Amino acid sequence: MAHPFHIHPGTKHFKWSRDLPPVLTVLSGAEISFDLHDGGNNQIRLDNAETALSSFDFTQADPGHGTVFIEGADPGDVPRVKFLELETADYGWTAIFPGFGILADEFADQLPALRMWDLRGAAGRGYLESASPSPPFLGTIGIAPAEGGDHPMVPPMLLTGGNLDTRHITRGSALYLPVQVAGALLSVGDGHAAQGDGEVCGTAVETPMRCRLRVTVEKGGGAGAKKSWCTHGPAIVMAPRETLGAVGGDGREFMAVGVDADLHEATRKAVRGVLAWLGAEKGMERAEAYMLASMAGSLKLTEVVDMPNYVVGFGIPLGIFVDQGDHSVRV
Amino acid sequence: MAHPFHIHPGTKHFKWSRDLPPVLTVLSGAEISFDLHDGGNNQIRLDNAETALSSFDFTQADPGHGTVFIEGADPGDVPRVKFLELETADYGWTAIFPGFGILADEFADQLPALRMWDLRGAAGRGYLESASPSPPFLGTIGIAPAEGGDHPMVPPMLLTGGNLDTRHITRGSALYLPVQVAGALLSVGDGHAAQGDGEVCGTAVETPMRCRLRVTVEKGGGAGAKKSWCTHGPAIVMAPRETLGAVGGDGREFMAVGVDADLHEATRKAVRGVLAWLGAEKGMERAEAYMLASMAGSLKLTEVVDMPNYVVGFGIPLGIFVDQGDHSVRV
Repeated sequence: MAHPFHIHPGTKHFKWSRDLPPVLTVLSGAEISFDLHDGGNNQIRLDNAETALSSFDFTQADPGHGTVFIEGADPGDVPRVKFLELETADYGWTAIFPGFGILADEFADQLPALRMWDLRGAAGRGYLESASPSPPFLGTIGIAPAEGGDHPMVPPMLLTGGNLDTRHITRGSALYLPVQVAGALLSVGDGHAAQGDGEVCGTAVETPMRCRLRVTVEKGGGAGAKKSWCTHGPAIVMAPRETLGAVGGDGREFMAVGVDADLHEATRKAVRGVLAWLGAEKGMERAEAYMLASMAGSLKLTEVVDMPNYVVGFGIPLGIFVDQGDHSVRV
Repeated sequence: MAHPFHIHPGTKHFKWSRDLPPVLTVLSGAEISFDLHDGGNNQIRLDNAETALSSFDFTQADPGHGTVFIEGADPGDVPRVKFLELETADYGWTAIFPGFGILADEFADQLPALRMWDLRGAAGRGYLESASPSPPFLGTIGIAPAEGGDHPMVPPMLLTGGNLDTRHITRGSALYLPVQVAGALLSVGDGHAAQGDGEVCGTAVETPMRCRLRVTVEKGGGAGAKKSWCTHGPAIVMAPRETLGAVGGDGREFMAVGVDADLHEATRKAVRGVLAWLGAEKGMERAEAYMLASMAGSLKLTEVVDMPNYVVGFGIPLGIFVDQGDHSVRV
């Protein structure tokens, strides 16, 4: 029977805690569908885009929808969460908020900035002006941490997921998480129609989303057991390339390279290089370039051993551009 | 006329300096071929593999072959270096040296370790037991820095390349570097038959290599000019995916996720996760897993804005494995 379980958008929480009550209890193997508010708790919509940023309430950021108690998922076990369907709303938004994003200090004078995206005509693909730099996914998926008390929603948790904002957790991929409390207490949220590695400007193409997933408990994730590797933290088996659809072009990227003894600063240098290239070669304003980089860039640690300097490569797929003189994106 | 210029392996230097004498002067557009000693200056070979590590001299690491003075390349200009051919020797080696590699502290008791690879039958492709996790490339390519004095070879330089160990600089790709001194003073070296992002164990599949490249000067890289983006540091236009050949499978990866407030530690966690997976699922010894990860892994900064925690994903392409029970690699 297809997804007999459904989570409504009213069942939200704004903290992670082992004490959150489940809103649903399922057996291993269950399919669950969710109606999800976006990572801004739907505070930014088509009908209020002009005024939404000035009144934006950050305490509502990245709501989790759940929790789901998974029968038989005990500490040491590993639930495998497989994403079966991900469908965006017909709009999305990208914003640069003051104090947020890897170049926050360099954008202080120009903010806030907001751009709305029309996602109609390609439901579930996150098309962006008829292109998709990356497939849709959920930024937030996590289970309850072992430590008591309340944990914030925006930072990802050290072991149990949460706001991982990791674009490789797509339809067809599987996420493994190490259970810390009985029932695991799974929650999801923060739909992204498209996002690059790093989410460098601080937001992706944020959108309310419907999703369907299957959760299966693999027993005995403890040390020495088959899934012992998951005790280190989350793990993903990525989907095959062809199931992700066309994500732009022939694989070529423009990649700016950042070299520095500080890994964070090396990353900032690489991002700056891409913004400079988007400005010089594509005529983009810097804030616009920052948002495009946030939704489409690949961010690689290309060298981490030749001390004291690290090398970070930040790439923009050339396939998202119609041509050299036009920075709109295409199929 | 095809590569009228040739650099022999005797023309090496073991420091970067703006005062190094050129061994060759060329015009913009020239093709140059090189015979390159490997990143260990050929100290490790098939004929001495048993004893080479105990006498290994680190002052000979990562020799540069050059320099090449490029006529008309002045400070503010940008040479584009395009790799036309890269051909490995018929053998390669991977080592774990004490104190080197991102998990150096965890391998102190087991080192040094060395593995030799037979690269015959697939010249130029870096085949590894008849598979290639990634295309061959040069770890070292750089130009003279602005600052006077001697600069070491192992760390990449902040602006002018050097030992970037960045596997995306392959055949068919183009590297841009910001000229600091007249003539640029280009040198290359450190052939890698295969390497993953990060080169996490400290070495790749090291091999003597022949390469052919074309260097073209683009004038006016200064601020405001067309190539102004290159003043931030090196930049790459990556080759199309299809020119890289089959690098294993359908794009699926096992990806371990590291979450930490320290970016270096997040990276270490992700690498540990992959080593644990290779041990549990593929039966690999930890040092062997570390070497495979170093030559085949993808290392992504998947989230860099949800402070205080970063997310790093370290992936191993599933396509390099023959099947679940066999960790040898295949075409």
